[in-house]
Amino acid sequence: MSGNTFGTIFRLTTFGESHGEALGGIIDGCPAGINIDFEAIQKELDRRKPGQSAIVTQRKEPDEVRFLSGIFEGKTTGTSIGFIIENINQKSHDYNHIKNVYRPSHADYVYEQKYGHRDYRGGGRSSARETACRVVAGAIAKQVLKDIRFSAYVSSVGELFVNKHYTELDLSLTETNPVRCPDLELASKMENYIKEIRKEGDTVGGTITCVIRNVPIGLGEPVFDRLHAQLGKAMLSINAVKGFEYGSGFEGTKQRGSQHNDLFNPDGTTQTNRSGGIQGGISNGMDIYFKVAFKPVATLMQMQSALDSDGNIVPMQGKGRHDPCVVPRAVPIVEAMAAMVILDFYLMNKTVTI
Amino acid sequence: MSGNTFGTIFRLTTFGESHGEALGGIIDGCPAGINIDFEAIQKELDRRKPGQSAIVTQRKEPDEVRFLSGIFEGKTTGTSIGFIIENINQKSHDYNHIKNVYRPSHADYVYEQKYGHRDYRGGGRSSARETACRVVAGAIAKQVLKDIRFSAYVSSVGELFVNKHYTELDLSLTETNPVRCPDLELASKMENYIKEIRKEGDTVGGTITCVIRNVPIGLGEPVFDRLHAQLGKAMLSINAVKGFEYGSGFEGTKQRGSQHNDLFNPDGTTQTNRSGGIQGGISNGMDIYFKVAFKPVATLMQMQSALDSDGNIVPMQGKGRHDPCVVPRAVPIVEAMAAMVILDFYLMNKTVTI
Amino acid sequence: MSGNTFGTIFRLTTFGESHGEALGGIIDGCPAGINIDFEAIQKELDRRKPGQSAIVTQRKEPDEVRFLSGIFEGKTTGTSIGFIIENINQKSHDYNHIKNVYRPSHADYVYEQKYGHRDYRGGGRSSARETACRVVAGAIAKQVLKDIRFSAYVSSVGELFVNKHYTELDLSLTETNPVRCPDLELASKMENYIKEIRKEGDTVGGTITCVIRNVPIGLGEPVFDRLHAQLGKAMLSINAVKGFEYGSGFEGTKQRGSQHNDLFNPDGTTQTNRSGGIQGGISNGMDIYFKVAFKPVATLMQMQSALDSDGNIVPMQGKGRHDPCVVPRAVPIVEAMAAMVILDFYLMNKTVTI
Amino acid sequence: MSGNTFGTIFRLTTFGESHGEALGGIIDGCPAGINIDFEAIQKELDRRKPGQSAIVTQRKEPDEVRFLSGIFEGKTTGTSIGFIIENINQKSHDYNHIKNVYRPSHADYVYEQKYGHRDYRGGGRSSARETACRVVAGAIAKQVLKDIRFSAYVSSVGELFVNKHYTELDLSLTETNPVRCPDLELASKMENYIKEIRKEGDTVGGTITCVIRNVPIGLGEPVFDRLHAQLGKAMLSINAVKGFEYGSGFEGTKQRGSQHNDLFNPDGTTQTNRSGGIQGGISNGMDIYFKVAFKPVATLMQMQSALDSDGNIVPMQGKGRHDPCVVPRAVPIVEAMAAMVILDFYLMNKTVTI
Repeated sequence: MSGNTFGTIFRLTTFGESHGEALGGIIDGCPAGINIDFEAIQKELDRRKPGQSAIVTQRKEPDEVRFLSGIFEGKTTGTSIGFIIENINQKSHDYNHIKNVYRPSHADYVYEQKYGHRDYRGGGRSSARETACRVVAGAIAKQVLKDIRFSAYVSSVGELFVNKHYTELDLSLTETNPVRCPDLELASKMENYIKEIRKEGDTVGGTITCVIRNVPIGLGEPVFDRLHAQLGKAMLSINAVKGFEYGSGFEGTKQRGSQHNDLFNPDGTTQTNRSGGIQGGISNGMDIYFKVAFKPVATLMQMQSALDSDGNIVPMQGKGRHDPCVVPRAVPIVEAMAAMVILDFYLMNKTVTI
Repeated sequence: MSGNTFGTIFRLTTFGESHGEALGGIIDGCPAGINIDFEAIQKELDRRKPGQSAIVTQRKEPDEVRFLSGIFEGKTTGTSIGFIIENINQKSHDYNHIKNVYRPSHADYVYEQKYGHRDYRGGGRSSARETACRVVAGAIAKQVLKDIRFSAYVSSVGELFVNKHYTELDLSLTETNPVRCPDLELASKMENYIKEIRKEGDTVGGTITCVIRNVPIGLGEPVFDRLHAQLGKAMLSINAVKGFEYGSGFEGTKQRGSQHNDLFNPDGTTQTNRSGGIQGGISNGMDIYFKVAFKPVATLMQMQSALDSDGNIVPMQGKGRHDPCVVPRAVPIVEAMAAMVILDFYLMNKTVTI
Repeated sequence: MSGNTFGTIFRLTTFGESHGEALGGIIDGCPAGINIDFEAIQKELDRRKPGQSAIVTQRKEPDEVRFLSGIFEGKTTGTSIGFIIENINQKSHDYNHIKNVYRPSHADYVYEQKYGHRDYRGGGRSSARETACRVVAGAIAKQVLKDIRFSAYVSSVGELFVNKHYTELDLSLTETNPVRCPDLELASKMENYIKEIRKEGDTVGGTITCVIRNVPIGLGEPVFDRLHAQLGKAMLSINAVKGFEYGSGFEGTKQRGSQHNDLFNPDGTTQTNRSGGIQGGISNGMDIYFKVAFKPVATLMQMQSALDSDGNIVPMQGKGRHDPCVVPRAVPIVEAMAAMVILDFYLMNKTVTI
Repeated sequence: MSGNTFGTIFRLTTFGESHGEALGGIIDGCPAGINIDFEAIQKELDRRKPGQSAIVTQRKEPDEVRFLSGIFEGKTTGTSIGFIIENINQKSHDYNHIKNVYRPSHADYVYEQKYGHRDYRGGGRSSARETACRVVAGAIAKQVLKDIRFSAYVSSVGELFVNKHYTELDLSLTETNPVRCPDLELASKMENYIKEIRKEGDTVGGTITCVIRNVPIGLGEPVFDRLHAQLGKAMLSINAVKGFEYGSGFEGTKQRGSQHNDLFNPDGTTQTNRSGGIQGGISNGMDIYFKVAFKPVATLMQMQSALDSDGNIVPMQGKGRHDPCVVPRAVPIVEAMAAMVILDFYLMNKTVTI
C-alpha cells in the first residue's frame, strides 16, 4: 500500500531518501493559469533548509528545486508538476555505524521489521529531509490562495512557553529571529536555551502555533473529512509530531458550555473564537488557529544504548549533523501542510453546488 | 466532493440525518469468512445509545441495527455489508424553533452557507447521531482483529482528571459505572458533577484515553499515512473533538531527548513507551495509547443568544433531550474508530511484501 | 479491497445480493439544491425491472426505491443520499440445486475460490440485480445534468444489426417497443427472434449504442482518467459486457489518417465526428457515442454440464426466471453509468481553474 | 482534479511534456525486497523508443531512465520509487507553426478550452511520449510478477488482419520483426504497407492483441472494479485507443448461450475460453486475452486544414518526425499497462481474507 500521496484534488506525491540521489514530487490537480513566483518558492525552502543559523543542523544543502513539467511560460498548465531537489552533501559514511544498529526512538527498527530491509543512510525515507518536497507544494498552494495568509510561529521550546494568545502578538516579527518566535524577549531566551542544550549533546521539544486568516466560509467535508480532521492528519504526518489541537483545544475541555460557546454577531462572525474558525468540520470565516506538539529529536550527541540486528544492546553516539530542536525549521513545513489542506478543500468546495 | 467515506481497504461509507427515516452505512473491504457475533455488535451500540443512564440524553432510541447484505450463514462473504438503523423517536417538532435560527457553536450556520439549505431537524447530518454507524463498523473491525484489544475510558470531566497513567489503572472497571471511568472514586465524583451541571442547564467537556494492546509491528504507511496521523484524523472526525495526542503528547515537548528516548530491550521491545507504540508512523509492538479532547456540548438548557436567518440576534433556549457531557457515550465511538484504523492498516500491510 | 464504489466526486457505493433482504446504495458528492423528481427515478427503474414484457425474465419485483437521507423538502442537501430497494420475490429454493454446483460461464466458481464461501442464491452479489442501484444513481445524475441528453438503444441482437448510423435514426422511438430498438422494422424481427430463442431454452447476445448530446467542452482528466477510459470502465463493469468502442471504434483502425481526421469548422465544431465527441480524452462538444457488447446470458433452460464442489462434472438445467437476452433491460443501465461518468467529470472540471 | 495517477495499491503517478526538460514518475506501493533488473527495464523502453526501425518516427531519444529513490542495494525498499527520463532531442522549433493553430483530431483545441493555455510544443502533455513512464512502471510490475507472462502483438494494420487465434501463433516470433507481428508472412506485408503509407505522407490504424498467462484465480474486485473493466480503462487510457474487447468480444454477441458457454473440466479449468480468462470480473486461471483498437495517427505529412485561435480555417502540414502507424511501438505499452493492472489486483487480493 502506498502512503506517499497527500490530498484529494490538489495532490502531492513524493519520493526520496535522505542520502539518495535526489528528492522530488509530483503535484497533481493544481489549477491552471496560476503565475508561479519561483523566488517565493525558493524562499520557503530556505526557511526550512539546514545550515541557516547556529541553532540548526550544520549539514549544507542548497535545496534548490528544479521544475520539470506542468509550468509553461511561467504559468501552470493544469497538468502534473514534476520537480526534484538534488542531494548534494550526502555524507553517507556518517551512517555506516548504524547499518546494523537500530537507534532508540528512531524508525530504523520498524522499517526493518515492516519492509525486510532498509536504506539506513541518514534514516532513509524516514528522515525529515522528505519534508522539503512538502514545502515546495505548500509554496505553490499559497500562491494559488493568495488572499489567505498562513502564519506559523514557535510557541514553546521545552518549558519556555509564549504565554500570549496569537491575537496579542505581532506575527510579522516571527522571521526576525532564528527561533521563529514573535515574542522577541522569549525568542532570545529560547535561542540561548537551544544553544545550551546543543552543547550538552542533548535535544529538546517544542510547539508551533499556526494561524490562517481570510479563509472563506464553507471549507471542509463532513462527516469524516472535517477541515480540522484533515489539518490534524496533515500535522501529525510531519516527523516528530505528537499532538494537535485547534481552537480551545485540550484547555477547552475544562470549560462549561456556557463559557465556551461563541455567540454570534449579526453578520455571522462570532464575538469569541474558541471554535478556532471551524464549526462542525467546516470553516466559519473566523481565524483558524491550531497548535502542534513536537517531541525532542531522538538523535543525541551523547552516548546512549541501541539495539543491533543480532539482538545485542550496544552503546552508540550520534554522528553527522543534527538539529538540537526541530521547531524553528518546522515552521515553514507546518504552513506548507496547512496551505495544501486549505487549497484542497477550497477546490472540493467548488463541486458542492452546480 | 464527498466526505462520507472512511478508510482505504476496510471502508465505511455512511448516510443519515438525526431525524430522518434511518441511518445506515456500507462496509466495503471486510475480509471474507469472518464469523459475525451480532449480539456483540448490538452491545457496542448499547454502550453508545441514548437513555442508557441518568447522565446522558433521555431520547429513547433502540438503535437496532439490521444487516442487509454481505453476511451469509453467519459469515462475511467479502462483498459489501449494508446495514440500517431506523430512527424511531424523532420528535422533529422539538426543532421547529431552530428552523430559521443558527445556534451558537453549532454547525447550523456553516451548513446553510455551504450547501444553501439544510435539514435543520436535530442538527441533521451534523448531529452526533451519525456515529452509531461508526460503532457498527468498529464492532465488526474488532471481531476481525480478535487478538487486538481496544480499551477506551474517560480520563477527565471538566477539571476532574484521572491522575494515573493507564498502566496503573484496572481498565476492566471502565464499564462498571455510567461515566466509564476506571478510577472508581473519581468516577463517582464525575457522575455527581455531571448531574449538577445538568441541573444548571449547562454542559461540560472532558477527555478520553484509549489503549490498544497486541498490535503487531509494522502497521502504518509513511510518509503521509502514518499510523498516528490516521488515528488522529479518525478521532478529530468525531463530533465535538478539539485535540489529539499520543504517547508523551504535549507534555513530551517539554522534555529533553535524553529523558524522552525509549531505550530498547534485546527483544526489540522498549523499556519505556513515550513513543506510544508508534515509531516513525509505524507500530512497534508496544501498547498504543492516545488522548482525545472533547469540548462542552453546545446545546444548553439555558437562555443564550443566537442568530436568525434575517441577521437578528435572538434569544433561544435548547429544547429536546441533550447530553450534559458527551464523553461517557463517546467511549465506544473512540474504540470503534480506532479499530477501523488498525484493521485498515493491518490489511494494507499485507500488500507490502510479496 | 473494495470494488463497490464508483466515481470520484459523484460517488456511488452499493450493496446487496440477488436474494438477500434488500439492495441499496449511498450516493455521495451529489451537488446540493437539486430538486428531485422521484417519479422520474422510478420510471428509470421500471425500464430495468424484471417482468416488464414477454421477452424478459418473469421474476416479479416492484423495484421500488426508498430514500432514507440526503434529500430534504424535495431537494438534495449535499449530504450523502442513502437508499434501499427491498427484495420481495426471492424464490431462494430455486437455487438449492446450485448450492454445491458451479454453473458454466457464471461467477460461482471464482467467487468460491476468491472468498472461500459465497451466497449462492441467484448468483448472490454477482447477479445483475445489483444494477438496479446504478439506475437510481444514474437517474439522479441525469436530473443534475438536465441539459445533457443520454440516449441508449439496442443496436443488435445476435446477428440482427441496425445498419444505420445513430444520426439516421429517430431515437425517440426507442421506448416504443420491448426490445428498445429505434429501427422499428428490425425491432420487430429482434422481438420475434428473442421469443424463438427463449422457446428453445437458449439465449443470445447483443449490442447497445449510446449517444450523449450537449456535453460541454472540457470534460475528462488525462492522462489516465480520459473521458472515454472511464466510460469504458463504467460499461465494462456492467454484467455480461465483453467490449467497448467509441467513435469510429474497431472499424476506424482500418482507415488512413487522411480519411479519419475530423476537420474543423470555424466555430470549433468538426465536419465529421469519427472522434466520437472526445479528443485526447477530453470532450470536444460534439456528440459522444459508443457501443457496448453483451455476451449471451449464461443461464440456459437446457441441459448443460456443470462442475460440483467435489470435482465432478454433473448435468444441470437452469431453473428460476431468466432473461433470454439482456440488452433490452440493459439500455437504462448503460445510460445510468454514462450519466454518472459525465457528472463526475463535470464536477471535477470545476476544480481545474480558480 | 487529477488524472495523472493509475492504480490503487501499486500506483504510478507521472509528469512530463513532450518537449519539456524531462518526463518522470513515482511508483508507490511496490512490494519491498524485489531484486530489480535495470537492463530489463531499459530493454522495455527500447522497444517503445523512437528511431528503432524504418517504420517508426525518426526522432532520436535515448530514453534512458534514472532511478532516484526506493531501490537500495539493488532491491526495492517498499518506499516510493522516483524516476526521470530526460528529453534530449526536443526540436521545439518544429512546433512554432502550431502555436496558434489547433490540428485536426489532436487534443490542441480541447486543452486550450479546458485549461485556458497549453504547452503547444509537440502536443505537450497530450503527446504519447508520456507513455515511456508507463513502460518503466510496467517493467517493474513484470519483475514483481515473474511467473506471469505478458505477450502483446500486432494483430492488424489497416485491413491486414492476423486471421489466426493467438493459440495458433508462435508468440516468441513477435520481436523478430519491426512490426511486432508473430505471423511472419503477414508481418512482412504489414511492413511494406506501412512504408508505402509513410511515403504518401499518410498514416494508418491497427490493433494489438495481448495474452496473459499464468494468472492466479481470484484477481478482480466486483462489482465496479472488475478485472476486465480496469484492463479496459488501462488500455483506453493509451493515446489513440478507440476500443477494447476481451475473450469473445464483439463477435461473441452474435452467438447463442449454448454455443458460447465454457464448460468445465473436473479441475476447474474450462474446455473452451470464450470468457477470456475472466468470469464475473474475476480471473479464473485460464489465459486472459484481449484486443485493443488504435486509430490512425492524426499528424499527416500532407496538407490538411486546421483551425487557428482567431477562428480561421488555415492550411497546415505536419512537421517534425512522426509515426505512420503506432501499433508497433504500442506493443510494450499495452503489456506495461496490463502488468500494472494485474499486479494491482494481485496485491488487492491479499486483503480479501485474513
